[in-house]
Amino acid sequence: MSTILVFGHRNPDTDAIGAAIGLARLEQALGQDAQAVALGKPNAETRYALDHFGLKAPRVIERAAPETTDVMLVDHNERQQSVADIADLTVHKVIDHHRIANFETTAPLYFRAEPVGCTCTILTRMYDENDIPIPGDTAGIMASAIISDTLLLRSPTTTDADRNALAHLASIADISPDAYGTDLLRAGTDLGDAQPATLIGRDAKSYTMSGTEVRLAQLNTVDPTDILDRRDEFLAAMRAEAEHAGYDLFLLLITNVLTTDSDVLVVGDPLDAVDAALTVTIRDGHAFAKGLVSRKKQIVPQLTRALAQ
Amino acid sequence: MSTILVFGHRNPDTDAIGAAIGLARLEQALGQDAQAVALGKPNAETRYALDHFGLKAPRVIERAAPETTDVMLVDHNERQQSVADIADLTVHKVIDHHRIANFETTAPLYFRAEPVGCTCTILTRMYDENDIPIPGDTAGIMASAIISDTLLLRSPTTTDADRNALAHLASIADISPDAYGTDLLRAGTDLGDAQPATLIGRDAKSYTMSGTEVRLAQLNTVDPTDILDRRDEFLAAMRAEAEHAGYDLFLLLITNVLTTDSDVLVVGDPLDAVDAALTVTIRDGHAFAKGLVSRKKQIVPQLTRALAQ
Repeated sequence: MSTILVFGHRNPDTDAIGAAIGLARLEQALGQDAQAVALGKPNAETRYALDHFGLKAPRVIERAAPETTDVMLVDHNERQQSVADIADLTVHKVIDHHRIANFETTAPLYFRAEPVGCTCTILTRMYDENDIPIPGDTAGIMASAIISDTLLLRSPTTTDADRNALAHLASIADISPDAYGTDLLRAGTDLGDAQPATLIGRDAKSYTMSGTEVRLAQLNTVDPTDILDRRDEFLAAMRAEAEHAGYDLFLLLITNVLTTDSDVLVVGDPLDAVDAALTVTIRDGHAFAKGLVSRKKQIVPQLTRALAQ
Repeated sequence: MSTILVFGHRNPDTDAIGAAIGLARLEQALGQDAQAVALGKPNAETRYALDHFGLKAPRVIERAAPETTDVMLVDHNERQQSVADIADLTVHKVIDHHRIANFETTAPLYFRAEPVGCTCTILTRMYDENDIPIPGDTAGIMASAIISDTLLLRSPTTTDADRNALAHLASIADISPDAYGTDLLRAGTDLGDAQPATLIGRDAKSYTMSGTEVRLAQLNTVDPTDILDRRDEFLAAMRAEAEHAGYDLFLLLITNVLTTDSDVLVVGDPLDAVDAALTVTIRDGHAFAKGLVSRKKQIVPQLTRALAQ
């Protein structure tokens, strides 16, 4: 076997990067020639976490085949979220916490998905099952991933397994989850001087639901008015991107990490499916959704069902 | 949640039945209202194992929706191998050791596949991870599943995990793997007075490979001449079934469990893909394949690749 490349989804978030580092280190400890890479540069939140624990950002790859045929996926399984040449590669392991779709292999593999808040929660268990101690910096980036994915254990995706894993990782990494976590989430809300066209692609995933091409983007903030004041600019950027990339529906969640509510901007069709899925009424491309923070738990299943009607 | 039905694939073998019993008991021990059922009656081998350990055959269901919306799958994940109304159900867990294909959910779930010889090997680990003791009769049917799937640890699908699990289960069930295992495999080779049309459906699975509908059937025997003397009858039955059910390719493996070689009967097209996949030359619908015993490891990936050319 050639070197095994381990990576998370495109537009990587802290879990995609943290889980790649975590799994690559576990595989190395088990004697494999594994290396963490990424399908994009780390965002501001992930950079904050990498810097805090003295880790380097994983090398960015566009395609895997030039250097290997052997890969492991973390934090995703759907083809359209993976490396461009995924069809030419042998996937040996998948560790994930999302729905399963658009994934197919010709041979058996190790596939482990659990309905928990974060991939790094599953990885924490796997270190334990294999009796491998977690290095301090790895525990730090894995704890950051759990804080990020669960909004400091406040998202409805949070499970007891996430709470236990975060407590365990925080003690190894010697951090206070609350103090460090608040700083980490705030770091992720820094929009800098980026333009709407850039911001709507920062944390965005694509889905095919009953033939409808759906794009779901999310921005975390501590003050949504900054973005809502520029609503028309954002809607125009979403419309342009939908046209360019062929999305039928484009949703942008502007999530307040302090209140765990979201404002939703929407372009495309069919809007009534979005209304039904989120139990909101979209007016002029906008709706406020109380308690909405999770694409995976609060949008994807509901919108999939609404679009299948 | 309503009662969770736990079942293996259609045309159940000993792993499909044994893993359903094993997972249902584990879920019960963890406080779930779970029940093992089956998508068909047990074959002669499985009946031998159930009788030996004083277990009743799981109730056979055609559809799940009349009684529940909540299911767990063992020993399969592909839609066409599952219950007829799978699309209307919520799959909460999948425990499997096959390739992943034609499987899709709208929400995250617990999905655990490992490239080992038998589903019951993974289940043995799961009992251990949850600190739940395995009852003697459950250990017996799970040991039988490992013996059946790995042909008493001689199939190329066998891993160290299977060897360890079988040793562990055999000590709980108080059996000698070799003595009991040989009796079990012999029980499975009893064709009784069944007709070819029945025999070719006894352990058969369907696959879609690059648009080609493929049927792979397998019969275990201690003397292949019994079947090969009636080759024309078998080929005629396969041709009729292919026409009736719309299979493009129908392969029947006649596997000698003592030598771990197989005779292969084939009807349909394209034959050159089968030749290439099995490195044989089919003449008059027949070829001898030395060392061929595993559909999953020695046919499905190779034939998938050959048909994609």
